[in-house]
Amino acid sequence: MQNRKPGDQTGQPIVGGRNIRLTIAFDGTAYRGWQIQKDAPTIQGLVTAALERITGAAVTLTGSGRTDAGTHARGLVAHFHTLSSIPPSRLVRAVNCLLPRDIRVLRARTAPPGFHARHGARGKVYRYQIYLGAILAPHLLREYFHYPYPVDVPRMRRAAAMFTGEHDFASFAKTGSAVASTVRTIRRCDLTLRGRRLHLTVEGNGFLHHMVRNMAGTLLEVGRGAMTMEDFALLFKKRDRASAGFTAPAHGLVLLKVRY
Amino acid sequence: MQNRKPGDQTGQPIVGGRNIRLTIAFDGTAYRGWQIQKDAPTIQGLVTAALERITGAAVTLTGSGRTDAGTHARGLVAHFHTLSSIPPSRLVRAVNCLLPRDIRVLRARTAPPGFHARHGARGKVYRYQIYLGAILAPHLLREYFHYPYPVDVPRMRRAAAMFTGEHDFASFAKTGSAVASTVRTIRRCDLTLRGRRLHLTVEGNGFLHHMVRNMAGTLLEVGRGAMTMEDFALLFKKRDRASAGFTAPAHGLVLLKVRY
Repeated sequence: MQNRKPGDQTGQPIVGGRNIRLTIAFDGTAYRGWQIQKDAPTIQGLVTAALERITGAAVTLTGSGRTDAGTHARGLVAHFHTLSSIPPSRLVRAVNCLLPRDIRVLRARTAPPGFHARHGARGKVYRYQIYLGAILAPHLLREYFHYPYPVDVPRMRRAAAMFTGEHDFASFAKTGSAVASTVRTIRRCDLTLRGRRLHLTVEGNGFLHHMVRNMAGTLLEVGRGAMTMEDFALLFKKRDRASAGFTAPAHGLVLLKVRY
Repeated sequence: MQNRKPGDQTGQPIVGGRNIRLTIAFDGTAYRGWQIQKDAPTIQGLVTAALERITGAAVTLTGSGRTDAGTHARGLVAHFHTLSSIPPSRLVRAVNCLLPRDIRVLRARTAPPGFHARHGARGKVYRYQIYLGAILAPHLLREYFHYPYPVDVPRMRRAAAMFTGEHDFASFAKTGSAVASTVRTIRRCDLTLRGRRLHLTVEGNGFLHHMVRNMAGTLLEVGRGAMTMEDFALLFKKRDRASAGFTAPAHGLVLLKVRY
């Protein structure tokens, strides 16, 4: 989110034409994340190629933000400008015919010319999915992080609640990421337990690289008793990645929604 | 269910020893069904190989019944006799280490010597999973049959209710299957709709080959208006596969439970 993306600058800039807004879902298991790469399959790469084939012109597809390799999305938003006159509903059908079935364009609509999927994003909702039972059932394999250890969920809930509000999330940012500010506002952060499935839902105005995965890993350490509530509470002040918990693996993370 | 299985007769018969009962879950996408085959990966084949490696002896693994290629299970039951003294909990860990992650042994326990996973089965519960929305989200891809057509769900529900009780299911049996009787008792057959996900849950004392998939396909034809309620009601008497609906695809079918 915080850096310029190569995909933003490629292709012939379209002057005039329509601005099309897409909502995209994908199972990220087979992909190297959103951002286009030369020698690896990515969501941006495949959707761009499909749109270029349909519109017959170079397409610059801008997503709401990067996603890590192996993470999933139910509603990533992207936009592109095009001179093509294809109606949005036909575009959806055409693009889905060209895409592999683990990437779907759920909706397309004509957006105001100034709509920008990244700059315009006011917030995002993520879910991190954990399975606490001893044996991970095969149907949960692709989207659940298996953590078969006893955890104190009410304690994790108390810690999760402390994430809400405006805080400096430097302790939860990937080491080495260069961003102007590590302050973010979390509007919602809660844990729901159904059977042995634990869902961490986080909504915020912006997220640092690996932030939700680091929040999930840290909450699990709190739940296991490896981190005290006192040490947890100090993490915002400490601004030290090494003091927080581990980075929970990519495949448990789902981008649910982008708000504008 | 109705035919003898090669797996029942192979290996060295174990005299004495313990009878171990397993509960097995799998994502069937990559497999040719339960029953062992020479040149194709099957659940019975892989679990048998893992058990033989652990126990150091030939294993005859008997499942609660065959499952079609590409179908799934949350709780298939199987049994085998062994002279090995490995405790059931250790057996679970060991076998899951050897199995691919899309097959899991959920539980193992010592059963009475006479317990037989197939002969002893008093009933089974299946779920057939349908997605009615226009676009199938990637996370539903492996376990939902995509049927993006308008259907009258209350009408399908009325038809589903007519499946309950004792009936001749010859119209719903795979053509050419040689069975002594096509009469089965369905204890429960209901449809639940959540969003655009439609679940058909069927519990019965036994099932003919393709029976649940044929029931699902027929209900969808009723829902679409391609079959009248009158024609539907006549199917039990007609005993004619061609008069019933299509065979819904394998990947929507999940064996939930086997009752003893």
